Amino acid sequence: MSEAAKTLDGWYCLHDFRAIDWTTWKMISSEERQAAIDEFLGLVDKWNTTEADKKGSHALYTIVGQKADFMMMILRPTMEELNEIETEFNKSKLAEYTLPMHSYVSVVELSNYLPSDEDPYQNPAVLARLYPTLPKSKYVCFYPMDKRRQGEDNWYMLPMEDRRSLMRSHGMIGRGYAGKVKQIITGSVGFDDYEWGVTLFSDDVLQFKKLVYEMRFDEVSARYGEFGSFFVGNILEENRVQSFLNV
Amino acid sequence: MSEAAKTLDGWYCLHDFRAIDWTTWKMISSEERQAAIDEFLGLVDKWNTTEADKKGSHALYTIVGQKADFMMMILRPTMEELNEIETEFNKSKLAEYTLPMHSYVSVVELSNYLPSDEDPYQNPAVLARLYPTLPKSKYVCFYPMDKRRQGEDNWYMLPMEDRRSLMRSHGMIGRGYAGKVKQIITGSVGFDDYEWGVTLFSDDVLQFKKLVYEMRFDEVSARYGEFGSFFVGNILEENRVQSFLNV
Amino acid sequence: MSEAAKTLDGWYCLHDFRAIDWTTWKMISSEERQAAIDEFLGLVDKWNTTEADKKGSHALYTIVGQKADFMMMILRPTMEELNEIETEFNKSKLAEYTLPMHSYVSVVELSNYLPSDEDPYQNPAVLARLYPTLPKSKYVCFYPMDKRRQGEDNWYMLPMEDRRSLMRSHGMIGRGYAGKVKQIITGSVGFDDYEWGVTLFSDDVLQFKKLVYEMRFDEVSARYGEFGSFFVGNILEENRVQSFLNV
Amino acid sequence: MSEAAKTLDGWYCLHDFRAIDWTTWKMISSEERQAAIDEFLGLVDKWNTTEADKKGSHALYTIVGQKADFMMMILRPTMEELNEIETEFNKSKLAEYTLPMHSYVSVVELSNYLPSDEDPYQNPAVLARLYPTLPKSKYVCFYPMDKRRQGEDNWYMLPMEDRRSLMRSHGMIGRGYAGKVKQIITGSVGFDDYEWGVTLFSDDVLQFKKLVYEMRFDEVSARYGEFGSFFVGNILEENRVQSFLNV
Amino acid sequence: MSEAAKTLDGWYCLHDFRAIDWTTWKMISSEERQAAIDEFLGLVDKWNTTEADKKGSHALYTIVGQKADFMMMILRPTMEELNEIETEFNKSKLAEYTLPMHSYVSVVELSNYLPSDEDPYQNPAVLARLYPTLPKSKYVCFYPMDKRRQGEDNWYMLPMEDRRSLMRSHGMIGRGYAGKVKQIITGSVGFDDYEWGVTLFSDDVLQFKKLVYEMRFDEVSARYGEFGSFFVGNILEENRVQSFLNV
Repeated sequence: MSEAAKTLDGWYCLHDFRAIDWTTWKMISSEERQAAIDEFLGLVDKWNTTEADKKGSHALYTIVGQKADFMMMILRPTMEELNEIETEFNKSKLAEYTLPMHSYVSVVELSNYLPSDEDPYQNPAVLARLYPTLPKSKYVCFYPMDKRRQGEDNWYMLPMEDRRSLMRSHGMIGRGYAGKVKQIITGSVGFDDYEWGVTLFSDDVLQFKKLVYEMRFDEVSARYGEFGSFFVGNILEENRVQSFLNV
Repeated sequence: MSEAAKTLDGWYCLHDFRAIDWTTWKMISSEERQAAIDEFLGLVDKWNTTEADKKGSHALYTIVGQKADFMMMILRPTMEELNEIETEFNKSKLAEYTLPMHSYVSVVELSNYLPSDEDPYQNPAVLARLYPTLPKSKYVCFYPMDKRRQGEDNWYMLPMEDRRSLMRSHGMIGRGYAGKVKQIITGSVGFDDYEWGVTLFSDDVLQFKKLVYEMRFDEVSARYGEFGSFFVGNILEENRVQSFLNV
Repeated sequence: MSEAAKTLDGWYCLHDFRAIDWTTWKMISSEERQAAIDEFLGLVDKWNTTEADKKGSHALYTIVGQKADFMMMILRPTMEELNEIETEFNKSKLAEYTLPMHSYVSVVELSNYLPSDEDPYQNPAVLARLYPTLPKSKYVCFYPMDKRRQGEDNWYMLPMEDRRSLMRSHGMIGRGYAGKVKQIITGSVGFDDYEWGVTLFSDDVLQFKKLVYEMRFDEVSARYGEFGSFFVGNILEENRVQSFLNV
Repeated sequence: MSEAAKTLDGWYCLHDFRAIDWTTWKMISSEERQAAIDEFLGLVDKWNTTEADKKGSHALYTIVGQKADFMMMILRPTMEELNEIETEFNKSKLAEYTLPMHSYVSVVELSNYLPSDEDPYQNPAVLARLYPTLPKSKYVCFYPMDKRRQGEDNWYMLPMEDRRSLMRSHGMIGRGYAGKVKQIITGSVGFDDYEWGVTLFSDDVLQFKKLVYEMRFDEVSARYGEFGSFFVGNILEENRVQSFLNV
Repeated sequence: MSEAAKTLDGWYCLHDFRAIDWTTWKMISSEERQAAIDEFLGLVDKWNTTEADKKGSHALYTIVGQKADFMMMILRPTMEELNEIETEFNKSKLAEYTLPMHSYVSVVELSNYLPSDEDPYQNPAVLARLYPTLPKSKYVCFYPMDKRRQGEDNWYMLPMEDRRSLMRSHGMIGRGYAGKVKQIITGSVGFDDYEWGVTLFSDDVLQFKKLVYEMRFDEVSARYGEFGSFFVGNILEENRVQSFLNV
């Protein structure tokens, strides 16, 4: 038996991808549409207050292509709060004109492959990463992933020391994108179908491709990475919600 | 030919995952909605009586993310009773506003890799596990799994003694979570698409991730585990049904 | 090139799995529902006559879980008759309130791995198995399967003698369930997506799990079996159709 | 790099599988239904003229099981004509009561593994196979397939001579069914998801199973064949269209 | 760790595949249909202006088979513009009568396996390939692909020099089709589910099959290529839109 890596866990996380049913959305009166938009912006206002109080964070992005029209990413201290926000959205007027396309349940995670003497939960830098305020970057990229367990390429059968050393070199690539891409890793073992979710933020969408492509040549991805669907999107600022939903 | 492990089998089990069609649910009058809720609570009352009579058990959880809105887990002595409960729910008013999302058919199972002289069906501890009253834990986690049969990693070609020894060390991990996570294993060979269902209960949702992740480094999971979809949820107490369905 | 096993082939077989759209079913008047039920029972009556004439057989089972609400299994001498029965059902009133969930097209098959001097089609025991009257057992289990062709585990590259010997030991397990489980193998190479369908009948549903699980440790299944979805159900006697459909 | 086999290519081919929405079909008046049937038979008449002019061919079959209710197989000299026929059908009245279930785009192909001195396009036998008039056989079987590229079993890495010799012995099996099964191979590399489509015609449906099963023991299929879904059907003669659609 | 290939990146690209809901399209008045067509042609006009200004390009093709009825391929300098065009189409009248079938998000990419002293972004030939005006070829073929990472066949573990030499011989095949097939490679790592999209244009649809088939015998495809769905279509010139949508 191989030794499990220790993880640090922060806020719970829900990625919620929705398509808009434009046909039925156009059928109702502009007053009804405006009421639905106002109600939705009211929800976002509540989320803003939570974010200002450092009790959570959220992000809204429109998604390119048919996989979804927009994505809500929500961070909260408890699984109950994620469930409540999701249900509150589901009961809203706007939700009547959306279709669920995909979702992902996870928790912000820092892997602790690097040995340390200190208590990480006393480290402000660690806390800032476990309980982050999501950046207002122009672009987002989301994908889930597994570590492979197949024949000779079985991550979970590797000795801890090998995994640590592989992850160290893997992390070096990420560090090469410091200032260009912000990366939030969320763990989803026991919560959803893959083992991790990766959410990338950048003001240069091409950096997503460069980062993920460069990593693919690293042994951690090349031999041990299994990837799910990729979603890419543009930030949906609150003041753009009105025009985005205008028909 | 390898020797099959003996199993002890208890109550039959149905996991039934449903989404709510909030749009049509909002279309009917509040009187109709209340009647539907009352009828559903009446079903739950009947299930409570069965549970009090030790003739079955059940659990209700809301599910986080788009995989479902809620899950009913039902244990009964016969396959007919599962079928009747499912059909009774399907004929109810509330069911008209739900969509089937996933289900799983299995039977509570204890694997008998540990040799024993006694008749296990005379052992009260064994009986309590075969015919359990489901705990009212705050969180639930469900996933189905197979033992892998692939190239060199073929569980079913291993000698009994190797499987026994692997399972013993695997069980040690589970025991490390005693008091934190309650685990109910149900067998589904011949009943549904995977070989087992795993249902975990805990008052600390993070323990699901810790347990499943730690086990993934154990050879039984690392080399021989194949996992289906994971579902995670919050307990839906009867007195919360009304507010959950309130629109 | 490896030698193909000879097979004996009997009646053609259609498994037809349906869900009921309870919501629309409840919308029509009880007179309309009764007419639909009567029309369906009229179809079953015709099938009964065919069965009494030894010109086919059929079975009706309700299915546990969301994969289907009921299953019709139909045996007939020709593919045309299967197509006609299916179309006749599709045109019926009841069919308007059902959704197709799954189907399987095959032909009753006896594999002829055991050498024989006699003409098997003159053997009454063989004929009874090729043109069976389906039992009225309390439970049914259906699943499709393939023989694996993957790397070192390639059934179709094995010499005939090895396959014969493996099948002999495999058959021994089945024989251990004689009197407890009746097994009907149908071949579907060229007809449907898997190579065989397996339909099991028993008055003790747990025997399905025991049989399939025990076989999984046999090399034929362990190394060479690939399994599709499993369906399990309770017999739907004609006199239970009325109450099953009553809303 | 391995040498690609040369192919001869004939007419383009569309397999179009449709389900009938019997519920809505029954809702319209018998006059409307008759008009839809007449319009459809008018389309078939046009196709008959094309076939009589040797400018294409077509076949209509009802499909057994829930995969489809009927299949139209269309051969034409250009991709544009396939697209036009498909669009013309889509715009027809009958199409309003059908659901698309599956389609396959390909081109009649003869593989040229056997060396030859002559120009094959001058050979009447070759031309008859590239531009065939589809037989009016009682049964059809369709499935798509790939040649495997996996580990040691990689068809495309084999030397030409090995492929030629494997295909020769493979072809011998097919020839054993001469007079019993007519086989039309269509290439779909670059056109659809598999590399080939196989359409079999016979007056004895059991011959499909015998042929495909016997071939499965041949190394070309056993080691190198990957198969998609199988469809089996009964001929839908024009004079049976009326009764097939009668409700 | 293997060295990542450098890439040159040009315009962002959206492939948007749509089916037409002919049934509802026929339900509206011919005036409404004409208004929808005119509005759509107005969108295309705007795209034509952008293309004339060298600020993007686009192509319209009808798709053969049931995968879609038509495909819009859009090239633009930013991800925001792709998102806006998609949303503008979604809000249009015509979109109410279409169903999303598939989409693909990528960026025009040139792989830079060949060493060079010059700055490629100063090379007019390179710029013409990064910011192309799509040809008005009669046929289009689209498919996504990955480089395999499986056991011994792991592209991303190969040394740069091996990949360079494999790609050189692979490119030779493509060059053999110069003048017959125009090929546009778009990178989608981090943007969509495969690593690349391949869009082929030709006036002879058979060349798609010849090219893709010949390449399949090349080691790059034979051992390292994983392919998604293939789409093939006929050009939909603006002056054919009216008749295509005419019912």
